Amino acid sequence: MKLLKDKIILEGVVVNSEILKVSSFLNHQLDVKLLDAIGDEFSKLFCKKNVTRILTIESSGIALACVVARKMNNVPVVFAKKNKSGNVPEDVYTTSIYSFTHNKSYDIIVSKNFLHKDDNVLIIDDFLAKGSALNGLIDIIKQSGANFVGAGIAIEKGFQDGGKKLREQGFQIESLVIIEKMDCCGNIFFKN
Amino acid sequence: MKLLKDKIILEGVVVNSEILKVSSFLNHQLDVKLLDAIGDEFSKLFCKKNVTRILTIESSGIALACVVARKMNNVPVVFAKKNKSGNVPEDVYTTSIYSFTHNKSYDIIVSKNFLHKDDNVLIIDDFLAKGSALNGLIDIIKQSGANFVGAGIAIEKGFQDGGKKLREQGFQIESLVIIEKMDCCGNIFFKN
Repeated sequence: MKLLKDKIILEGVVVNSEILKVSSFLNHQLDVKLLDAIGDEFSKLFCKKNVTRILTIESSGIALACVVARKMNNVPVVFAKKNKSGNVPEDVYTTSIYSFTHNKSYDIIVSKNFLHKDDNVLIIDDFLAKGSALNGLIDIIKQSGANFVGAGIAIEKGFQDGGKKLREQGFQIESLVIIEKMDCCGNIFFKN
Repeated sequence: MKLLKDKIILEGVVVNSEILKVSSFLNHQLDVKLLDAIGDEFSKLFCKKNVTRILTIESSGIALACVVARKMNNVPVVFAKKNKSGNVPEDVYTTSIYSFTHNKSYDIIVSKNFLHKDDNVLIIDDFLAKGSALNGLIDIIKQSGANFVGAGIAIEKGFQDGGKKLREQGFQIESLVIIEKMDCCGNIFFKN
């Protein structure tokens, strides 16, 4: 997606060869016009999947997921929450996610009321790297018995293997921008 | 706002006289059509304020803030983040917020890059009770030197004093629904 690629080139900050900061438009400050265009792309890519619910994870996926939902007949958005309490209530699905950024695991939860076995669930998220969050969300969909129709990702780090492994399993993973490499001079090389 | 009130009556769960759960449409699952209508209301209420930036706090305020931004010429949305690291980087504004729900304090941060002294900042959030989060966000706006033009809140707990105290200071605080009282039978009494 040219618009997103241009924005990354213009405003993205390469912290090191693995970390790209896009705080100015995607995960701290939000460029709602850009989000709208991203939502358009996702809704086209998954328009034939009869999506009934969109699943994401707090916080950065929420804005994107809502845009896509609006373009898909206002289907409900559900965002997985980080479980702060330590206790797991009976009425939730839960799974553990390892954060490579913060170097620790945390549990996410989704209420059983908001995912049903007759749902066709589309996952939307801002980043895909090693796939920990995405695999966690897929695990939650499996627990609910719903149908996972695919995932729409804004930026994939193609030099990490999360996307590759999931595509090998036959899942439709659509990343609008795939980064092949970032170098120590701050250059970003794109795959698509 | 009748639409929101009707939704609260239909789907809100009164946990006790102080806690109302609106997980099915506002802070776990999101009803994007309702959010759109809420956004319309806020944009009308603050249309004369020359808003240049919308500030909210992760996670539940994000979806609402984005809708309002879209209706206000796509002004940027900034969401304050909970500081998980314990360290405070130099390039952020920070303040401490006390969560009565979780009975503890936490720090929020906003990058200095995304709030400027010539900004007119509108705060959007889902709930207002004792006003801890809202006061924290106002404090961050003050630190940046920007102009706080007002706050749009979806649901205010009118039986707690956050809104009252802020209005006494002359701030424009617009709550679409104000709850006067909730009783042990699950009844909700509205003020507006």
